[in-house]
Amino acid sequence: MALRNLEVCFTPALFHLHRNKAAITVVVDIFRATTAIVTAFDHGVRKIIPVATVEEALSYKNRGFLIAAERDGLKLDFADFGNSPYNFMQPGLEGTTIVYSTTNGTQAIKMAIGSSQVVIASFINISAVASYLQKFTEDVVILCAGWKDRFSLEDAVFCGALSEKLLDSGEFQSTCDSVTAARDLWKTASADLLSYNQKFAHTHRLKSLMLDDVIEFCLTPDQTDKVPVFDGTSVMQWDTMTKNQG
Amino acid sequence: MALRNLEVCFTPALFHLHRNKAAITVVVDIFRATTAIVTAFDHGVRKIIPVATVEEALSYKNRGFLIAAERDGLKLDFADFGNSPYNFMQPGLEGTTIVYSTTNGTQAIKMAIGSSQVVIASFINISAVASYLQKFTEDVVILCAGWKDRFSLEDAVFCGALSEKLLDSGEFQSTCDSVTAARDLWKTASADLLSYNQKFAHTHRLKSLMLDDVIEFCLTPDQTDKVPVFDGTSVMQWDTMTKNQG
Repeated sequence: MALRNLEVCFTPALFHLHRNKAAITVVVDIFRATTAIVTAFDHGVRKIIPVATVEEALSYKNRGFLIAAERDGLKLDFADFGNSPYNFMQPGLEGTTIVYSTTNGTQAIKMAIGSSQVVIASFINISAVASYLQKFTEDVVILCAGWKDRFSLEDAVFCGALSEKLLDSGEFQSTCDSVTAARDLWKTASADLLSYNQKFAHTHRLKSLMLDDVIEFCLTPDQTDKVPVFDGTSVMQWDTMTKNQG
Repeated sequence: MALRNLEVCFTPALFHLHRNKAAITVVVDIFRATTAIVTAFDHGVRKIIPVATVEEALSYKNRGFLIAAERDGLKLDFADFGNSPYNFMQPGLEGTTIVYSTTNGTQAIKMAIGSSQVVIASFINISAVASYLQKFTEDVVILCAGWKDRFSLEDAVFCGALSEKLLDSGEFQSTCDSVTAARDLWKTASADLLSYNQKFAHTHRLKSLMLDDVIEFCLTPDQTDKVPVFDGTSVMQWDTMTKNQG
């Protein structure tokens, strides 16, 4: 069988170069959107509706939806909660639908519409995502949410970790320099990821906002086997998608 | 004295995020445009006029100029020579003006117009560039030519090498994740750059075109102290710029 092609796209501003309608796009925003989304499903949330703009989030708020929304790391006034994965662990969220808008992550998720599938990945579900991707035959593009279209090291390091799992499976090949770079960055970082995280610009951004309590959580692999998938309108755990849709 | 800010821009498609009119932009296209330009000045060429389009190059040809032009690695029919640094070593080029157009490099050079200065860098003049930059007080942005707007590992590795020299000087600081990533890639690659070069997608592109004879030359540091600078119209060796201009 032909090997599947693997690419890494370091920021949304480069996605036009990597976009492949026939491929599965895997979206990653380690600090913190995709980690938070995976956490939500791990704690029983039924559906997440990603929206790109503050106006859309506010419009959902006025229709009675629960809203998670932040800009530049901080919760928006009208939102029920912000962007911390810890928000999605609180009791009472089982079975709910949450509307979600963030600086980078939800924009990247929406950008991936039109791919064969859009999968939500983070360190906390990395092995589950790798296994899920191996159910299919399509090429894979890993899309980093980045920081305002810039390269983000924590997302790149994650791409290296996921690329290593996929390439080690023997089902994938890559001629993409971004994959090679990400793998070498992961090799350097993985020796001690919690120390390496001091190099991430976003770690210092979170610290200055006193939001760095989530960093260790966001960098700890394999805390759940949930694999959320975006169908163009909402994100749901993949194996509940058909039966719970609507 | 305040530290000077250092950023790395991994591809021309991200330059709008890093562009800084007050900064010196250092343009790099290791395989092969900036290496070839530095080689030309090392062999007595007086001036290089970078042009973005094939049409512009042809128009100069019709006015009797010497033309170096390639697309996708291959010399254009009407050009006097292509993109190999070896072309610029031939006798008889001393004192000449050459019009130059390439797939990625010359576009990046032209894109940097409007910066405080535009400096042409490569491994073959890396220490000379680092010393030259230390004559000034402006911030520095290192712009990779990339490959058709994509991330190119050989350019990124060079950025790491140059960033290390600048940061080690004590005059610079950086909070840019691309600088951090480039430095870690350089740390991995520098242990054996000629072996590491097997990982570059562009190395294999050059091999398939039988143009890989230049790779070792392009990766060998400090073969010249020439530092070409682009004034918005033409590239000249910096210390001949004022007296030879026009």
